Amino acid sequence: MANLHDLAYEMEKAIRSSAEYTQLKSLYDTVNNDPTAKRMFDNFRKIQMDLQQKQMMGMEITQEEVEQAQKTVALVQQHATIGKLMESEQRMSMIIADLNRIILKPIEDLYGSMEQY
Amino acid sequence: MANLHDLAYEMEKAIRSSAEYTQLKSLYDTVNNDPTAKRMFDNFRKIQMDLQQKQMMGMEITQEEVEQAQKTVALVQQHATIGKLMESEQRMSMIIADLNRIILKPIEDLYGSMEQY
Ligand SMILES: [Ca+2]
Ligand SMILES: [Ca+2]
Repeated sequence: MANLHDLAYEMEKAIRSSAEYTQLKSLYDTVNNDPTAKRMFDNFRKIQMDLQQKQMMGMEITQEEVEQAQKTVALVQQHATIGKLMESEQRMSMIIADLNRIILKPIEDLYGSMEQY
Repeated sequence: MANLHDLAYEMEKAIRSSAEYTQLKSLYDTVNNDPTAKRMFDNFRKIQMDLQQKQMMGMEITQEEVEQAQKTVALVQQHATIGKLMESEQRMSMIIADLNRIILKPIEDLYGSMEQY
């Protein structure tokens, strides 16, 4: 049996050297080195995270907050680099979700068998 | 570069054939095939999940609910097989968390670099 930790480290290296990760890192660097883009992106992230936190805590989200968030999304998507960064993040999330679905199948099988009984 | 999906499937196999997974599966089967143990375990899981859901939704958890949950934990831990199953689940969770920490390090590095600027 292959050692689980060795495989995890191999996977870490494979992610780090993948085209998708390299592109994501490059877009992050570009945004980080552009003060205007960085400010826009940080502002967007803050609004997004505040809303998520409110949602998790079961707090009410006002119509105004929803509209402000939508405006911010529309604004940052118009910024060429940030738009690309967001698409790149989306692709990386899907890859990670996909890998997790494969790796965690044995665990899912156990819980699935539990519900059947 | 090793293919990410191939590595994920290798990891899936390695988890499935690990001593920890084999033991966990065997304990699940034992509990599933013992109606009394199964009922105790299901009841414990339900109480646990209800509390988690309330917590996530920001709902108040009463002192009575906390006490009932604690009593149920104490009760199921006294059942030899369920106690072992819970320990085995705990170990598996730690293994999965450990693997995730290794695999997702490249992603964490990106977000870390973001905060520094
Ligand atoms: Ca700029
Ligand atoms: Ca019994």
